[in-house]
Amino acid sequence: MVINYTEVEVRYKETDQMGVVHHSNYLVWFEIGRTNFIKQIGLNYAEMESGNVVSPVIDAQLSYKKPARYGETVTINTWLDDYDGVRTTYGYSVKNEHDQLLVTGTTVHVVVSKDSFKPVLLRKHHPDWHGIYTSLINEGQ
Amino acid sequence: MVINYTEVEVRYKETDQMGVVHHSNYLVWFEIGRTNFIKQIGLNYAEMESGNVVSPVIDAQLSYKKPARYGETVTINTWLDDYDGVRTTYGYSVKNEHDQLLVTGTTVHVVVSKDSFKPVLLRKHHPDWHGIYTSLINEGQ
Amino acid sequence: MVINYTEVEVRYKETDQMGVVHHSNYLVWFEIGRTNFIKQIGLNYAEMESGNVVSPVIDAQLSYKKPARYGETVTINTWLDDYDGVRTTYGYSVKNEHDQLLVTGTTVHVVVSKDSFKPVLLRKHHPDWHGIYTSLINEGQ
Amino acid sequence: MVINYTEVEVRYKETDQMGVVHHSNYLVWFEIGRTNFIKQIGLNYAEMESGNVVSPVIDAQLSYKKPARYGETVTINTWLDDYDGVRTTYGYSVKNEHDQLLVTGTTVHVVVSKDSFKPVLLRKHHPDWHGIYTSLINEGQ
Repeated sequence: MVINYTEVEVRYKETDQMGVVHHSNYLVWFEIGRTNFIKQIGLNYAEMESGNVVSPVIDAQLSYKKPARYGETVTINTWLDDYDGVRTTYGYSVKNEHDQLLVTGTTVHVVVSKDSFKPVLLRKHHPDWHGIYTSLINEGQ
Repeated sequence: MVINYTEVEVRYKETDQMGVVHHSNYLVWFEIGRTNFIKQIGLNYAEMESGNVVSPVIDAQLSYKKPARYGETVTINTWLDDYDGVRTTYGYSVKNEHDQLLVTGTTVHVVVSKDSFKPVLLRKHHPDWHGIYTSLINEGQ
Repeated sequence: MVINYTEVEVRYKETDQMGVVHHSNYLVWFEIGRTNFIKQIGLNYAEMESGNVVSPVIDAQLSYKKPARYGETVTINTWLDDYDGVRTTYGYSVKNEHDQLLVTGTTVHVVVSKDSFKPVLLRKHHPDWHGIYTSLINEGQ
Repeated sequence: MVINYTEVEVRYKETDQMGVVHHSNYLVWFEIGRTNFIKQIGLNYAEMESGNVVSPVIDAQLSYKKPARYGETVTINTWLDDYDGVRTTYGYSVKNEHDQLLVTGTTVHVVVSKDSFKPVLLRKHHPDWHGIYTSLINEGQ
């Protein structure tokens, strides 16, 4: 299975007065992992958007096991969890330097036209993406 | 059922280059709704923290139906979904000015000591919170 | 002088582990004050952008006197400090509920085409904005 | 002169609907540069805070020349601009991959007790910091 490993140094701005990283930042870290996963499999999300197509999140789930703190470097693990031609699901886990699991989660995405937010078929508009995602899912099974 | 309704004007900073509110901000809006729900039932989260106790999120789930945009005012609906003496679950829905549903979600919280992040029993340390949460859940049934 | 007063409840997310509002958030609060100042003088920034024109910040200055904290409601005061037909300068002060000064600042803006980021003349593209800004500056003198 | 160079990949979350990085994020990038500058000269800000001392910003100035965009990697240059025993001033410039200047700025910091926000003398409480900062300023002259 293809997994992207991205290291992130915790930013001071990402902490809150609880003394730990605010829980909303993990969605931002997932997004960084996703950007890099997509690069790793030879695609480019910035280019997709230049074609007036965007890929919003329609569902997100996060489980928080242990907080990250300022001064730490965490690793975001990102993989393709599912792809059915319409919906793409990414899986994530965030670990600290001692390989302790901090957070796990998934996000589900569709592809829509930037102007109307109406669904776009990857198979038609981005056959390269569709081909790579399909083969990744088939290989994983 | 007690529901808190909080209006939020979308901030320019909350948008991203997709032209809509970035999906991570809904966790921030949920937090605003939660703060106000807690005030509405006669409690105060800032005071709880001054007792060296914090209430981190251990699980979050979000479903995105329709994006919010700059220039809009949205309403965050927040209610108590579950309380079992250890875990508190809040439910949320975010609607726009045309009463269209934008996002729904839940967050699950525990109460821990600020220093050690070890669990604290609300029943012992905050009997007032425990009493109100218990009666809200019983009334709801 | 026209001054817009906007109240903002401090968000938990806006705090950092210093236990106070992170200093970058005041630029976000200035932006909220600016949006409301523009509405108060009868204009609408969201509409301006729909005409493919944006108004980026070219200079910002902030002086921090006293930190804001979670649980507080602050008031952002916003006024037009200068307008020379090309550059618009807004002035800001943020106060707490005890009328104590927390932060003062200014931001300087130009108007550019959204696609090229090349300067656009307000006088030509938005004569209504130019007229109102000019008269505000003249009245203030 | 000691300069820290830190590379940052622009995050999608850092963009706004203008299609560029929101101007408040440069204060966050300055903070990342500052953290790394401090590490480079052999000190550690996280450790300073564990001694119940924090170093808030009392003044910030930013000049925006050219916007950063998603898909770009920028370099934050950070140096010590001034130190008078009470106030520390850092200078920053942010450049893109073509060595074009995007933003310049300065932030001024003091050191205070975390609990009271009352000034603390670096010379007394952190003679190591005072020594290194003093010698850096003297060398630079």
